[in-house]
Amino acid sequence: MNMFVRNCWYVAAWSHEVAQGLFSRTILDEPICFFRGQDGEVVALADRCAHRGAPLSMGRLEAGALRCMYHGVKFAPDGKCIEIPGQDRIPTGMCVRSYPVAERNRWVWIWMGDPARADPSLIPDTWSLGSPQWAYKPGYYHYDAPHMLICDNLLDFSHIGYVHPTTLGGTENIALSKPVVKPADNGVRVERWLLNEVPAPFHTKVASFAGRVDRWHFYEFVAPGVLIMHSGVQATGTGAPQGRYHDALEFRSCQAVTPETTGTSHYFYAVPRNFAIEDEQITETIFADVVAAFEEDRVMIEAQARRLAACPDAPMVAIGADAGLMQFRRLLAARLQQEQAPVSAANA
Amino acid sequence: MNMFVRNCWYVAAWSHEVAQGLFSRTILDEPICFFRGQDGEVVALADRCAHRGAPLSMGRLEAGALRCMYHGVKFAPDGKCIEIPGQDRIPTGMCVRSYPVAERNRWVWIWMGDPARADPSLIPDTWSLGSPQWAYKPGYYHYDAPHMLICDNLLDFSHIGYVHPTTLGGTENIALSKPVVKPADNGVRVERWLLNEVPAPFHTKVASFAGRVDRWHFYEFVAPGVLIMHSGVQATGTGAPQGRYHDALEFRSCQAVTPETTGTSHYFYAVPRNFAIEDEQITETIFADVVAAFEEDRVMIEAQARRLAACPDAPMVAIGADAGLMQFRRLLAARLQQEQAPVSAANA
Amino acid sequence: MNMFVRNCWYVAAWSHEVAQGLFSRTILDEPICFFRGQDGEVVALADRCAHRGAPLSMGRLEAGALRCMYHGVKFAPDGKCIEIPGQDRIPTGMCVRSYPVAERNRWVWIWMGDPARADPSLIPDTWSLGSPQWAYKPGYYHYDAPHMLICDNLLDFSHIGYVHPTTLGGTENIALSKPVVKPADNGVRVERWLLNEVPAPFHTKVASFAGRVDRWHFYEFVAPGVLIMHSGVQATGTGAPQGRYHDALEFRSCQAVTPETTGTSHYFYAVPRNFAIEDEQITETIFADVVAAFEEDRVMIEAQARRLAACPDAPMVAIGADAGLMQFRRLLAARLQQEQAPVSAANA
Repeated sequence: MNMFVRNCWYVAAWSHEVAQGLFSRTILDEPICFFRGQDGEVVALADRCAHRGAPLSMGRLEAGALRCMYHGVKFAPDGKCIEIPGQDRIPTGMCVRSYPVAERNRWVWIWMGDPARADPSLIPDTWSLGSPQWAYKPGYYHYDAPHMLICDNLLDFSHIGYVHPTTLGGTENIALSKPVVKPADNGVRVERWLLNEVPAPFHTKVASFAGRVDRWHFYEFVAPGVLIMHSGVQATGTGAPQGRYHDALEFRSCQAVTPETTGTSHYFYAVPRNFAIEDEQITETIFADVVAAFEEDRVMIEAQARRLAACPDAPMVAIGADAGLMQFRRLLAARLQQEQAPVSAANA
Repeated sequence: MNMFVRNCWYVAAWSHEVAQGLFSRTILDEPICFFRGQDGEVVALADRCAHRGAPLSMGRLEAGALRCMYHGVKFAPDGKCIEIPGQDRIPTGMCVRSYPVAERNRWVWIWMGDPARADPSLIPDTWSLGSPQWAYKPGYYHYDAPHMLICDNLLDFSHIGYVHPTTLGGTENIALSKPVVKPADNGVRVERWLLNEVPAPFHTKVASFAGRVDRWHFYEFVAPGVLIMHSGVQATGTGAPQGRYHDALEFRSCQAVTPETTGTSHYFYAVPRNFAIEDEQITETIFADVVAAFEEDRVMIEAQARRLAACPDAPMVAIGADAGLMQFRRLLAARLQQEQAPVSAANA
Repeated sequence: MNMFVRNCWYVAAWSHEVAQGLFSRTILDEPICFFRGQDGEVVALADRCAHRGAPLSMGRLEAGALRCMYHGVKFAPDGKCIEIPGQDRIPTGMCVRSYPVAERNRWVWIWMGDPARADPSLIPDTWSLGSPQWAYKPGYYHYDAPHMLICDNLLDFSHIGYVHPTTLGGTENIALSKPVVKPADNGVRVERWLLNEVPAPFHTKVASFAGRVDRWHFYEFVAPGVLIMHSGVQATGTGAPQGRYHDALEFRSCQAVTPETTGTSHYFYAVPRNFAIEDEQITETIFADVVAAFEEDRVMIEAQARRLAACPDAPMVAIGADAGLMQFRRLLAARLQQEQAPVSAANA
């Protein structure tokens, strides 16, 4: 029944998406209405009036409270009903679910499980999204594909030579390089060096390398679907092989995948850099290339999703490159099983 | 299985919709072909040829009979097959269902249940649609929402201040006024006065009130979903409070909701008035405002329908304003149960 | 479960559809990737990578082999995996299904059942599509209707007077003429003469008949849905009634219906003629009329399909004109039952 891990923080929105008015987004099959209270804090309420089910996101903000504009029932930011037109009595049960929310580094996180366990210290550290030393333009994609297929994609960069030859990839040799994959706290850690290769088209647009380059992708991918990466490129021979970061282009990408429904997903992404951070032209150039590349992913993953839906019984045969995604799928499956156990071992 | 009350008259069409040719509309999940016989009477046949299932509405009228234009099988207005090309024998069972139909005051009514019980005297009296003393332009809306949600809307006008502030409403105080709700013959009677208020934007477009006004909505809402209303507005102080109709703008609205399928509906409406009935500009102005207002309803109700479909298990918590719709829902539920009882108590 | 006869040849494509690149088409609910190997022979592989399910039709041809462009896994034309980037070992099961294919007279045929039984001598003889003495322009239609409804249509030409009055039909008397219907090898044979009638609009566009004409349609309709027809028209009195072919316009139409899914179909058609075969204007004129007529069929059959889906329990009442389609449906049902029997009697 419940196909999603619930006791964790999901990225629900970019901060700027929850601005003056009411913002509706479905997370884990639940329509949710986001808005800012009088103190500017983000509030998340079930986007369904407790009275007759109208969307509260079609309602009206009144001094930090939210009035349904079908019949006028009004709710406080904690979800309690505080006014019913024409009557004094508030019936028992006239309230909407309020979700724990936290805003960190321009991402709005939401806790979809037991509110008592919503510990903000569990939120992954996406510091590069909030640092003035790192510049980026924020991105969002809607996917007609299950969340897990997008996680798979991010857990195996062997695909970038094939899917992104003219953007992020540049060489199919990426698939020949062996990443180190190991367990991380609440996820998987992946480290991959690519030595003595041509730069990607993406690199040559923002820097000029005289010859061959060394590239690296170091990242953690943590539950429920958050990528935090240090990647870069430098001239081959600049440092010792696999020694790091001499006159390098460095990026600190953060990406998050959040299920909308069983078959659709939200994808939040940014590729912060620490060079030429005032140069808006470079910001736009990088963003355009990233959007082009992530569109290549989207086309492939949505096509894959259609094939899997059409042939649900056909097996997938694993290869070595699947190590990361297999580890992550096992981790999520264990979390899901734990949450659904009759007596939850998670009640620490 | 059967979710609809069947032994009652439903509005199927405006008279002008069934004109020269063949008109197809689905009622209670059944596709039906409407046309006029040689005497001009409306005929309603199942819109599915008994031979191979082709729509008869793609057929051809021949002197009051209907020929399927796939293989030429021809049916009389009573649904009996009267010709099969190339053969003389008419097989048993080669007929289509014929529905009892009656035309009253520019509405075409259809009886979806046991034909033997189709008594035209049971048709609600929507006289204002046929009277030369009352002027209006007819309206129709298709709804992607279940019939019952539209009935709910019409049974509780507390919504009009919230949903229609710039059209029919004008003030949210409507939700504070208490209507009288009582059982009516085959439905519910609702009476509501609103005293000493600003006129609605709708009123100020067709009349000029110097100051405050008194407004009333008196209506019956009868099974399966027909509203027959007397409403109006007059200057406050014109008569004794709640005394009626001195230099008033009066309207005699008729509205009908008919299920198309479980999740979609037909909505027929008109707002006849008895003032300036020759003034076509006023007719157009009122119609435009009504369309704008009913579009506001449609947007809200379809959004509500999507929420209810997304969260089918979430309860609805009743408030005082729900009195009318609760009564009507109970009445329809009782009718449905009665129809589906093994030995029907309705076989009077 | 399995609703389709599998051990037979289906038309999958026109030869020109499988040209330089990769061509994807779903047959019997199975997405299939078609391409030409190095010898020019058509290859058909399951269009779903054995690794993670990405469509192989989004892949890259490499000297007759096919590389998936998600993670680079590469397959030989027989479906065997021949390369996995970054590893030497090919896991057991890393292969995709390869389908027997044969190309005959500009049609690509595919065998969807047991490959061991894929005997090309079983392919129906559609010689007129490959003969230099017969000219035509090839046609294809996608149908939102089950394959069987299109077969029905082709098995009873009594419809052409009703559905195609301004194209192929011309007179409703066609439905009065009695065809001879008899079993054929693996299908049904239909022979119909229409004597002393007005020519069809279709005829008068490509020839001038001074008066009345005799017309004939002689065809076999063989499993799983292939029509091979000799039809024509000649001046009445040219020969003895039902004597053949004196100064006639003759056609050798081939048409094939292939299920895409349970509810959608592929329809391949051509109407070769042996007169004025160099005259491209006549080729275009005939093609345009055929397309117009087959569009008339499509509109009717898709409407029929929607009605049948809406009223799945309503019966179909047979008439004499159904003799051909009834025979063919019985034949296909027997084939299906035979294939699904626990011990198949078909293992000859």
